This record gives sequence, C-alpha cells and structure tokens, in this order.
Amino acid sequence: MSGCGKISNGVTINDGFFNRFRETLIREGIPYQWEALNDRLPADTEPSYCIRNFRIAAGKEEGSHGGFVFQDSDVYKWLEGVAFSLRWHPDPALEATADEAISIIAEAQQPDGYLDTYYIINGLEKRWTNLKDHHELYCAGHMIEAAVAYYMVTGKRRLLDVALRFVDHIDSVIGPEEGKLHGYPGHPVIEMALMRLYEVTKDPRHLHLAEYFVNERGQSPLFFEEEDRRTGNNFYWKNSPFRYQYYQAGKPVRAQKDAEGHSVRAMYLFSGMADVARETGDESLITACRNLWESTTKRRMYITGAVGSTEYGEAFSFDYDLPNDTIYGETCASIGLCFFARRMLMLEARGEYADVMERALYNGILSGMQLDGKRFFYVNPLEVVPEACEKDPHKRHVKPERQKWFGCACCPPNLIRMLASLEDYIATETADTLYIHLYIGGEIKSGDAVLTLTGNYPWDGKIQLEFRTERPICKTIALRIPGWCHSCTIMVNDMAATEKPRDGYVYIPRIWGDGDRIDLCLDMPVRMMRANPRIRKDAGLVTLCRGPIVYCLEEADNGGDLHLLHGLSLAHARVQWEPETLGGVMTLITEAERESRLGWDNLYDDCPAPASTPVQLRWIPYYAWANRSVGEMRVWIRQ
Amino acid sequence: MSGCGKISNGVTINDGFFNRFRETLIREGIPYQWEALNDRLPADTEPSYCIRNFRIAAGKEEGSHGGFVFQDSDVYKWLEGVAFSLRWHPDPALEATADEAISIIAEAQQPDGYLDTYYIINGLEKRWTNLKDHHELYCAGHMIEAAVAYYMVTGKRRLLDVALRFVDHIDSVIGPEEGKLHGYPGHPVIEMALMRLYEVTKDPRHLHLAEYFVNERGQSPLFFEEEDRRTGNNFYWKNSPFRYQYYQAGKPVRAQKDAEGHSVRAMYLFSGMADVARETGDESLITACRNLWESTTKRRMYITGAVGSTEYGEAFSFDYDLPNDTIYGETCASIGLCFFARRMLMLEARGEYADVMERALYNGILSGMQLDGKRFFYVNPLEVVPEACEKDPHKRHVKPERQKWFGCACCPPNLIRMLASLEDYIATETADTLYIHLYIGGEIKSGDAVLTLTGNYPWDGKIQLEFRTERPICKTIALRIPGWCHSCTIMVNDMAATEKPRDGYVYIPRIWGDGDRIDLCLDMPVRMMRANPRIRKDAGLVTLCRGPIVYCLEEADNGGDLHLLHGLSLAHARVQWEPETLGGVMTLITEAERESRLGWDNLYDDCPAPASTPVQLRWIPYYAWANRSVGEMRVWIRQ
Repeated sequence: MSGCGKISNGVTINDGFFNRFRETLIREGIPYQWEALNDRLPADTEPSYCIRNFRIAAGKEEGSHGGFVFQDSDVYKWLEGVAFSLRWHPDPALEATADEAISIIAEAQQPDGYLDTYYIINGLEKRWTNLKDHHELYCAGHMIEAAVAYYMVTGKRRLLDVALRFVDHIDSVIGPEEGKLHGYPGHPVIEMALMRLYEVTKDPRHLHLAEYFVNERGQSPLFFEEEDRRTGNNFYWKNSPFRYQYYQAGKPVRAQKDAEGHSVRAMYLFSGMADVARETGDESLITACRNLWESTTKRRMYITGAVGSTEYGEAFSFDYDLPNDTIYGETCASIGLCFFARRMLMLEARGEYADVMERALYNGILSGMQLDGKRFFYVNPLEVVPEACEKDPHKRHVKPERQKWFGCACCPPNLIRMLASLEDYIATETADTLYIHLYIGGEIKSGDAVLTLTGNYPWDGKIQLEFRTERPICKTIALRIPGWCHSCTIMVNDMAATEKPRDGYVYIPRIWGDGDRIDLCLDMPVRMMRANPRIRKDAGLVTLCRGPIVYCLEEADNGGDLHLLHGLSLAHARVQWEPETLGGVMTLITEAERESRLGWDNLYDDCPAPASTPVQLRWIPYYAWANRSVGEMRVWIRQ
Repeated sequence: MSGCGKISNGVTINDGFFNRFRETLIREGIPYQWEALNDRLPADTEPSYCIRNFRIAAGKEEGSHGGFVFQDSDVYKWLEGVAFSLRWHPDPALEATADEAISIIAEAQQPDGYLDTYYIINGLEKRWTNLKDHHELYCAGHMIEAAVAYYMVTGKRRLLDVALRFVDHIDSVIGPEEGKLHGYPGHPVIEMALMRLYEVTKDPRHLHLAEYFVNERGQSPLFFEEEDRRTGNNFYWKNSPFRYQYYQAGKPVRAQKDAEGHSVRAMYLFSGMADVARETGDESLITACRNLWESTTKRRMYITGAVGSTEYGEAFSFDYDLPNDTIYGETCASIGLCFFARRMLMLEARGEYADVMERALYNGILSGMQLDGKRFFYVNPLEVVPEACEKDPHKRHVKPERQKWFGCACCPPNLIRMLASLEDYIATETADTLYIHLYIGGEIKSGDAVLTLTGNYPWDGKIQLEFRTERPICKTIALRIPGWCHSCTIMVNDMAATEKPRDGYVYIPRIWGDGDRIDLCLDMPVRMMRANPRIRKDAGLVTLCRGPIVYCLEEADNGGDLHLLHGLSLAHARVQWEPETLGGVMTLITEAERESRLGWDNLYDDCPAPASTPVQLRWIPYYAWANRSVGEMRVWIRQ
C-alpha cells in the first residue's frame, strides 16, 4: 500500500463553517494571545511571562524567569500560527509584530547557538542536565516548527537561522558519538520538527538527529535513569503505574504496543515516528506506528476524538477505559492526534486515518476554543455536572466553562497553529492522484488546474468539485468516503460514476477539462451511536452524530438532571438549521423520555420503575457546548 | 418523642449467622491482631510498631517511634474488643495477654498522667501543639473506651485508673478557663468516650469536658487556625473544597447541616454529639444530630451502609454523589454510622435508625473482613474491575482483595470491637418497654425474665421470642418492623396481634408469663431495588436485596464484563440455601440478559442495539464478596 503523497501546497480555504473560526482567529485569537504572551491581559488572568523571559535573556530587561521551564514554546507556537495565517491573510502589521518577536528571540540566542530562556536566566552551567523534565528539546522543536513555517510563508530567514544554529548546537551535544549525551527529549515534538526542517534543508544531519531521537528512546541502559543518577533529578512518576512510559521511554519505540503515558507527548512522538518512517521507509517503524495507531484509535479514543482518559499524568490509562466525566482529553492531545492521523495518511491511503482526523477536528479540537476565540478548554469532557467540578476533587481538572488563560498555556496557541494551517489537511497529491481528505470549501491547485470545492459541509453532504484548467489534465481524483457514510453517489458531469470505494477512497481516473464537475452526495442522516461494549462507562448509552459532528445535550436547552433522560427515539427526529444559535449550527430535535424524580424520600427503594414523561430534546454540536451559560452537559444518554 | 432507653446489658448471643463471625474473631481475629500489634506477622506485612512504641515509651526498649501519630489507638481498640469478647467468651489466657498489654501501657504513663507514645518518645515539650492533626485526644478517646469496657467486663481498674489520670491531665490542659487551650480534637472519638466514662464515674467533669469538645468545635476565632499560626503547623486541606470541614470544624456543630469532610471523623463526632444531647437534653443539639442524620442517610449513603464518596480526604462529597467504583466507603465509617444510629435510637424510638444500623452491619461492615478473619478491606466498593484498580491511579485505593494489614490499621481492630460488642445493639429498655432492634438470636434478660430469640435471620423472616420467667412481668415488647419489610404477621401465643407499627415498631403491652411466645414473621421476598433518581451514578440501574442483605454479582459466578448484564427479571427468581458456599449463604438465582461483544471492531458505531442472550445470574450477599478469587464485582446492574 502506498501513501497519499505530499501535502498539496496550493490550497486556499473559503468555507462557510471554518471561515468564521478562522476570522475569529485573525480578529481576536492571534492579537489576544499576543497580549497574553506580553502579560497585558487583565490582572485576574494567569500571567504568561513568555516575552518577558526572552527580554531578560536578551539582556534587555532585569528579572527572574517566570512560569514553567517550557514557557518559551508558547511564543514559538504563536509564531507558527501567525506564519500560517499570513499565508491566507497577509497582514503587514501582524508580520511586523512577529518580526519584532523574532528579533527578541534572536537577541537571546547565545554565541554557541543555545537558546532556552530558563537556563540562560538561571545559569547555563545547568543546561542539558535534565532532558527528562526540562523541555529544552521541546522548546527547540517548537522553535524549529515556527522557523520553518515563517520561512516558508514569508521567505524571511532570521528565525530559521536561529533555529539552524540551535540545531547545530544540539547536534554537537546529543547523539550517538562518544562524549555526547545519548539522550532524547522527555517531551517529544523535535522529531517531527526536524523532519520539517529536513524537508527544507535536505541536510542529512537533520534527518539523522530525528532518527536518533526516535531510535534511542527507551533503549537500555535507560538514558533518563542514568541522567537521574548522575544529576540527582527527581523521578516524579516512580510510583505511578506507567513509570518511564509516562515519557513513552519505558521501552524502545518498536516494542511499544500501546499508547501509554502523557497523551500529548504520545501523539507528538507517534507523529515524529511516522515522519521518520515515511522518509526512511523503515518497515519495523511503520509497523510500530500502525500498532500505536490501533491502540490509540481502536481502544483508547473518545467519540469526540479526545484522548487521555485520566488526569493523573494527563495520560492514557488502559484499553476501553473511557470515563466521560473524569476524562482528561486535552485539546492539545486531539490536535496531536490530528498530526498523527495526517502522517499515517501520508504513509498509507486509508480512509480511517482521515476519519479520525475529521473526528478530532470537528469535535474535540474545536471544543477547545470559545466561539469568540478568547477562552479555552484544556480538558474536554463528555459529561459535566458543574457541582461535581467544584466539589469532587477528582473532577477539579474538568471545568464547566472555558478559561481566559493558563499557567501552562499549551492549548491556546496550539489551536491557533492548527486552525491557521487547515489548508494542509485537506488534500495530498502523488504523481498521478489528487486525494481529497476533508470537504472544506475552497480551491485546490494541481499543476496548472484548479479544483474548486463548494458545499455546506459539515451540515450538508452535497459537495461540488469543479475544474478550471487551460488544458486538460490526466489525474486520478481520490475522494474520501467517510467511515460514517453508508451510502453516497458520485456524478461526474452528471453521469453516475461506477467506481467503488477502496480503503475509504473512490478513485476516479480521467482526463479532466475546464468546467468538468464532480457532484458527491454523502448521505447524512442523524445516526444513533453506540459504543463498543467493552467500554464500561458507555454500556447501555447512546448518542447522536450527523456527518462528522458529534452532538450533545446542554442544560440550557434541556433542563438539568440530564442523567434522567432515556428512551431516545429517532422516529420524529428533525434537523434544524439555526443561524442565530451558537454562530449558526444545525440542531437536532428528537423525542425521548425523562424519568420523574417525584415521590422519592429514601435513597433506595424497591418501588416500580419510576414514571417517565415524553420530552423533546434539543441537541447541539459538541464543539459548541459551554458557549451560553454554565450548566450540565452530556454526550451519552441512556438508550 | 422519647428514646428507646438504655442498652440491655443482659444480652447473650447464640445466632446461626453471627456465631460463625464471632467464633472466627476468637479463634483467628483477636490472636492474629495481637501478633500484628507485636510485629510478629510475616515480613511482607505492613509493620504495626504499636506495642514496640509503648515498650520504648516505658523505657523497656530502645528505639524511635514507628508508624503514625495515632498508632497507640490500635492496641486500645484491640483491648476494647478483647474486653467485649471476654463478656461472652471468658478466656483466662487472653485476659492475661490483655493484662500484660495494659501493664506496658501503664508503665508508659508519665507522672503527670500524660500518655501518648509519639510525644513521649519524640519529646514531651512538643505535646499539645497540634490538636488538629496529631491525634493525642483521639488516642486518649480510644484508651478511655478500652478502659471502661475492660473495667465493666473484668472489674479490673488498672487501665481505668490510667485513663482517669490521663483525663485529669487533659482537663488541666484544655478547657474554657484562661490559660488552658481552647481546643478540641482534629479526630473526634473522645466525646463519646468521655460519655461512656461518665456513665461509670458520674463525675460531672467528664460530662463537661465532652460537652466542651462538642460546643467549642468550629467556634470563632477558630482554634485550629490560631494553633497553626502559633506553631507553624501545616494546614493540609488549605486548598481543598472542605478546608476546616475536613475536621468538621469549619463552623459550630449546630450550624453544620451536612455531613462533610473525613467520614469516620464525622460519624464519631455525630455519635458523641448524640451522646451529649441525650444526657443534657439540649434541644438545639438534638436538632443538629437530626440534621446530620438526614444528610448522612437520606442524601449521602450507599445502599450497603457505606459512607464517604471520595478518596480525597476520605470524605463525604456532596448530595447524591455516590459513585460505585471510586467510593471510599471505609469500614470504620460504616462502623461509625452504626454508632451514630444506635445513639439516635436511644434519643428517639424510630425504626429508621435501626434500619440503617442493620444495613451497615449486615453489609458494609461485615464486608470489611475476610471470612477467615485474617484479611481486611479499608475501602468497600460497590463496583470493582481489578484491571482498573491496578491501572487507574484514581482507583488505586480500591482493592480487589482484602489486605493482611495496613500502615494505618484503624479498620481491623474496629471490626473486632464492633463484632465483639454486638450484644449492645440488639435491645434497649425503658422502664416499661423492651425494644428489640436486631433479630440476632440469643437471650435478652429483662428483670428476672429471659426472652429467648430464635430464628434463622437474616436468611429467614420467621422469628420466635419466648419468655422464661418465674413470675409474670408487665412489659411492652416493642418489635422493630424493618423498613424493608412491607408485610408481616405477629402471633402472640398463636393469636394474631392487632397492634400496628408506629415509627417502625409494633408495641405489644402485656403481662407476660413463662412460656409466652411471640411469633414474628417478616415477609422476606427478593426485592428489586432502585436508587433515588438524584443519584446520577445509579441512573437506570437495579440491584437485589432480600431482608437486610444487599446482593452482588461476582465474576466467579457470572463471568467477567458484568457491565454487559441487563434486563434483570424476578419472574423465575430462586432463593437457594448453599451451606458449602462462603460459609453458608442464601444465594439468589435470577434471569437476565447478557449483551454480546461480538462483531465490534470500531469503538463507535451506528449499528443496531447489540444482541443479547438470556443468562442465569447467581447473586451472593455483598458482605461475602472477594472471598474466592480476584475478579469483577458489581452491586448495581442495568435494569
């Protein structure tokens, strides 16, 4: 099986659904986060310290380092997001701000290329003594990703040069050679960053360093164990069930069969592994990626594309353990799942990868941001009772409303870079085939031809693709048929196509001329969903999906005590476009029953089943929950 | 409304159900725990240090203090249990061992009466500087309880004198007078202990000190806050939702409307409050007791009589928050609930108090001990999946099998003293009425008359009471009609009694002669139980009870994946006496359905409801779970 080729770099988006989110990003998200990074948000907001740390490191300001050891990464992620946004929304003022940020970053770089404000401020003699927990390589990774993106979009090399010097420094300190540290990052990301850098530089040292980080990880004797012994660093996860697997470093990556430990780290590592595997063709690494994909998406993923079942270690737990109310489901982890899915897709043309990418994108990722772009979820639960968030200490990580900022602010800029780079998730191209993975409206260039995609996805399954080309082109168009779609029709210039889907794609080979048109109609009924019976916490429960959208019930529409709802019926289900609700959403109206609470005095009784009365339920898309008032929310209800 | 009088002190037990547990106590439990207290259990067991600490404090051995600050209480609780056991099972060798323990304890007492090995060993200058967390008053309370029990049973004063001297010392250090600490214990128990002491001594100082501890608690300015300020002690619960209510000290006891904080402390405090209220007749305190009873038993109690919904703080959480799998449900808390219930009963003759006492006793207390008397549960869950206990860090407090001993070994000796003193829970007597609360077989003396109770409770609802008396006695016999019983008949000398139950008791006034007989027949069908719809985690679930016994399903009988069971029917339910199973239990055989796991590859699907096949379920009494093999267990299943 072959991959889906390279990311099409001639994609522009013009999409009824995503335009709104992306305009919010430009109008609110990016400027708001720049204010946050500069500590200019109101005083009741968690401070960032991020830019201030760089100014201190550059000798432009006095003070001590603020925030976490990985604080630098926030501005890198913001810069990467800005770079992507400039690709589709040129903005000289924003670019000037970004250049200003880059300038401060560059001034903080040390003569030997080193750049991490935590150690520059607190003492360089301590650098590289805690690869396990001190995130220098993590920050370097995000710097590289920002540098590559900024260079690719603006052509400006300043940050790229900073990154290249830092990579040279890293390469001189870490690696297989004697006298170097035989280490790797406690928090992966540099693996995929180096692979992106390699795409630009084609410098084999960049590929080899990425490979080294992937292959050395978890080898015996364990670097982290030796590092702790040498430096006296603390091993926080000593008594945890996952121990070094918290870092996905408990065993070599090819021996890892399950997605374990910190879920964001896992997703970033697996993405880097897939990048290296694609470049090197290493079959054992491809197999490892497939195993970890299976574990993640077939046994340890929520219906929303959330991953990470437990707050303890922000981690995966065990197969089919998917509690809805104590979930971690970090926004960054779903973003990471999207990274991983796209990379698996580039390894193998299988629709299941794009299905998961779409699931995470339209549900567990979008839910991370308030519709106004100014508040964020770290944790994305599938069941919330506000009283429990307040009073049950084991649910205090679950918030019933989005927060303005976080001490650990990984998610907000991750949302920026994800949404600003959506172009890169829509289509890929091999020599002879153009793959369409996501039905986001806009234009896709292929050679000299332009394919225009229009429709009203995800609210409607009818999608039109039209060619504009000066001369006919010979190309197979591979259209993804989503896993959720049980019936579809494809018309090519009003003639029914006869091709059948293969591994999730319908391949239409043809010489396409100007004005040629494909009409894809994905049947998009309301679907009553059930969970795999191995998922204990979903036993006997159902929920609704339509197209890629997972729905939920909110107290605002359905009253409290959502656990009393049952007997969901699709008999008279209605799909209702509500332009004024939550920025415009398709709501679902269904019938169900609500159990009565009346007549109960005791806690337990052998009375008959409680009476129920018919109720009409109003379902909203999961991603839009918690945008009106604080209240209960549930994805799953009793059948 | 008046109370049920005093505990009948002429009760002897001869009961098919409890004899076995109590013989195990004599044969195994008491000697085993003595070995534990002396650190003579196998090396893989948690050490106790308890007796060793006393020997060091008495100058008979060198060394440092081992274990927790409250380690002393373990031997006091053991001694109390031994005292109760000697009442019904005289054992000179055991009494000699107890005397030996008492001798070591007495030798450790300081000239001024102080006695707590932690401070004697670590430095007396620090004593009374951490009433909040250092348990000196808690240990004193258990010493008093042991001393009173040992004195009452054996007539020996040595431990009583030690206790009296210690109380004199406490009275000289703590109290309302200027120059004394205006404090109270972080862990209650001394309140009810002093009330028991007062029963023996009638020394008003003992009553007043108990009253003081109850009334001063939570008053402003808060003693614990001032103590922390003065001494620099740590306040562990500063950022918890309950703060000082962890200690039930966040407000004065009369202002406390909810059972909050550490559940064992709550139960012990409420018991002490009820003791003081009964003695003083203080209406505001009686009202406070009633409020806390309502909160505990009408909104925060499990069907097994377990209390304490969360491991965090071993605490109550909030109304109707009763998760079955992350529960704390400490054995000691159910024992404390039994204490509280009995004291409420002595305040007011209402069957609901005895109902809760019975519920806790036959379920959540007995479950704490293995049938062989040598292993113990601290936490008593209603739903267990062994894999989750191992791999979900938020369930690591839940064990799928009982443990040999604990670093904090409060539960095992608490079980001894509870079961060894069962006589005191069966009957109470006022001037004219003899109340029968629990149908445990044996004899109850009332004046010169003896009432013999026989039957096969809890397996059978037929109970016979027969008088032996030389001369007729005029007495109202008040028979409790359990809340679970919807239909019963009472025959007095084969004539149907016409009295109707009033607040849970049928009162039969009569002049009783020798050979007079009451036949009580409590209808005892299998009951399908539902939980109050406000309990979110039990929505849509059912379980079975019969008489006072709560049933559960184990993997050993029903296979794993118990969450797939549903469709419980009582249509062909069978009740089956199995003498060879679990020491002899009545099992229940019912029909239900088991959902198939077949055909699932994905995690989520819009497939039809999964197929189910009929299965026969075998239910065992909850108290007997985890006595065969490690496996799944569930009390509640889908309806």
